[in-house]
Amino acid sequence: MSSRRVFLLGGANTQFLGKGNPDYIWKNHPDFGKRENPGIEELLRAAVNETFSKLGADPEAVERGYVGNFVGELFCQQGHLGAALAGSHPALVNKPMTRTEGACASGGLALACAVDAIKAGCDVVLAAGVEVQTNESARVGADYLARASHYRRQRSIDDFTFPALFGRRTKVYREAFGVSEEEIGHVAVKAYANANKNPLAHMRARRMDLDTASGASEKNPTFLQNAEFASYIKMSDCSQVSDGASAAIIVSADGLRRLGKSEADAIEILAIGHSTASLYDDGDLSQLWTTRDAAGKCYAAAGIGARDVQVAEVHDCFTVTELLMYEALGFCEPGQGGKLAASGATRIDGRIPVNTGGGLIGFGHPVGATGVKQAVEIWRQMKGKCGDYQVTSLPSVGLTANMGGDDRTVLVTAYRNAG
Amino acid sequence: MSSRRVFLLGGANTQFLGKGNPDYIWKNHPDFGKRENPGIEELLRAAVNETFSKLGADPEAVERGYVGNFVGELFCQQGHLGAALAGSHPALVNKPMTRTEGACASGGLALACAVDAIKAGCDVVLAAGVEVQTNESARVGADYLARASHYRRQRSIDDFTFPALFGRRTKVYREAFGVSEEEIGHVAVKAYANANKNPLAHMRARRMDLDTASGASEKNPTFLQNAEFASYIKMSDCSQVSDGASAAIIVSADGLRRLGKSEADAIEILAIGHSTASLYDDGDLSQLWTTRDAAGKCYAAAGIGARDVQVAEVHDCFTVTELLMYEALGFCEPGQGGKLAASGATRIDGRIPVNTGGGLIGFGHPVGATGVKQAVEIWRQMKGKCGDYQVTSLPSVGLTANMGGDDRTVLVTAYRNAG
Repeated sequence: MSSRRVFLLGGANTQFLGKGNPDYIWKNHPDFGKRENPGIEELLRAAVNETFSKLGADPEAVERGYVGNFVGELFCQQGHLGAALAGSHPALVNKPMTRTEGACASGGLALACAVDAIKAGCDVVLAAGVEVQTNESARVGADYLARASHYRRQRSIDDFTFPALFGRRTKVYREAFGVSEEEIGHVAVKAYANANKNPLAHMRARRMDLDTASGASEKNPTFLQNAEFASYIKMSDCSQVSDGASAAIIVSADGLRRLGKSEADAIEILAIGHSTASLYDDGDLSQLWTTRDAAGKCYAAAGIGARDVQVAEVHDCFTVTELLMYEALGFCEPGQGGKLAASGATRIDGRIPVNTGGGLIGFGHPVGATGVKQAVEIWRQMKGKCGDYQVTSLPSVGLTANMGGDDRTVLVTAYRNAG
Repeated sequence: MSSRRVFLLGGANTQFLGKGNPDYIWKNHPDFGKRENPGIEELLRAAVNETFSKLGADPEAVERGYVGNFVGELFCQQGHLGAALAGSHPALVNKPMTRTEGACASGGLALACAVDAIKAGCDVVLAAGVEVQTNESARVGADYLARASHYRRQRSIDDFTFPALFGRRTKVYREAFGVSEEEIGHVAVKAYANANKNPLAHMRARRMDLDTASGASEKNPTFLQNAEFASYIKMSDCSQVSDGASAAIIVSADGLRRLGKSEADAIEILAIGHSTASLYDDGDLSQLWTTRDAAGKCYAAAGIGARDVQVAEVHDCFTVTELLMYEALGFCEPGQGGKLAASGATRIDGRIPVNTGGGLIGFGHPVGATGVKQAVEIWRQMKGKCGDYQVTSLPSVGLTANMGGDDRTVLVTAYRNAG
């Protein structure tokens, strides 16, 4: 590949919104009936414009744009979001814009295309992601989101297809390695605790304790109809149905100079490992084999190992996924993820802080935005911008792992603090 | 941009199928109830595998893949088609795959990403496109396809949003330049005549004469409810609602060697001009300003002019669009497209043959495949593979113009015959 170096200059996330967030307009909100939650166009525009203003970057300098989105056609009756990105700022009109989709990895694909564009010769590229999905019932939304699975074959597993697919994984994983429900519960407790310190997090105001997270109860029920998997997924095990957008600016060394910036303002994107499994074949469910493959490619290309990683954002679409990610990324051996979580090593003050802003469970999961949000969060941690959830010493190597579907499209990206 | 040269090694199209094609399974077909038309997974697999076998290219050599698709989530309940591409051949599993979307330019975006990947350092990249859309009624399908427009603002123009938007363009264009219905009719006559020579064309068995194409009649009715635009769009003015897939292999000079090929086997991709207008602003409708912008970028980067183009595939989503394309691409002056069509200059035996296989009107328009199909068709013309619709002397410079929405996402690509 091209030897051109690639930098993430930075970016911005909007508030992630949905049920359970005090700002979300919903039955008991004082503004219910008076105003509406922001739509897909407003969110995209807000993330893009905040990115330009926060970074002090001239929008005229942007040469390309990519926007990750999963199912805007379904929730918002709007496809063709490249044209919405072009319409997000007057300086972007007539520039080349592309929407990427790979289910929950749609944002990671936008970043990967932006990195390719820099390697191909561009100097300043915009990568964004957006999703709105709170405007339908959970049941209708679950059907839409099932388009990330092999619908024809997998839709029928449950009305809530993805919770059931990951209930299946949880069962296989727990049986294979003897992991307890309490060990898995630590993931939810950490996610909510971190989100409680993050003003943009969907779950910034909801608490979660280990007792609640470790077993089904009236306030933390199971909800699947599928009898085999129902007991393996409780509400606290799920990421959130959120609306939100994220944007970031990717630059070459020349791009940094053109925007009046230096390497100290940015983090370097060392490598992306990108693997795509077949939609048609599930394989062994006790590990994330595609994630493992992507991580191997990333580490090899970046010239680093798992031990070098000092902060990570991983795809915790369900609690079990975070444990499986620890293992696939090499933070621990297969089957040891629960012990790693229970040890506290992945908390903000731990040895390898993971999902410091709350992850998909606490910060929220506006599907198409998530991959971009992860990169923005790593940048924020590396530059000391995380406020109440800032890690104490600035990390020099960070990692993101963005996953689409059930371990189907995976992008693992390594970053080095350039400053 | 990177100075690495990029080649289109070739590709394949499936049969384009839909109502009006003798092979399409539909009420009066002898196999009705016995077998079904191919689905999105079969079509994609067929195009990919035929590409490998036809070109004698080793699938193991592929380093990346991109697949253009507009609304698989709606017609087929299937998103995440990158994973379907990975599942199309065992050698593709775990390679990086990305779905691109830009409405009817989704396939062009897949090609553009593939070209970037080569410029970034890859040597062999797969670009595919697919759409299935005949499995819903025309009215439901029109609502799905309206996601290519600014739905919130433009959906209500008519139940058939895009025919109405281009009825509006036809009215503005005819009034601005005094173009007759008969002049526009020449586009449909040429499209069907060319398709009649193309065994893969959706409309290979349907005839169209100038009398029929030049005015509404019982066999060529208008169908819009919108009173202002209804008379401007007849059935013969529309591209087809087709199912189909296309695939192509894009390579570097090293990639050619790695596959045991030489420049003589390929055509060179000189440049892509890619422009994206704002979804929110329609502007002057008498010309395709975004197409003009993309063409200008393409010609400048390729170091050629409109006069150098010897064969072209342009986006004739409606008859008027082909005339507007002639003008935006510089084949004639604004307002002179009708005269150019009537002169016969764009027929297979004309000075600048356009849409020799039938275009979107005759060959058909499986939305996500179209941009890739255009490139495959240019390659086939340049290499003398078009059989009954082959132009007499092999062109040395070719052009494609792929458009998403109403002149919103446009990719104009220039090719040089390397052999």
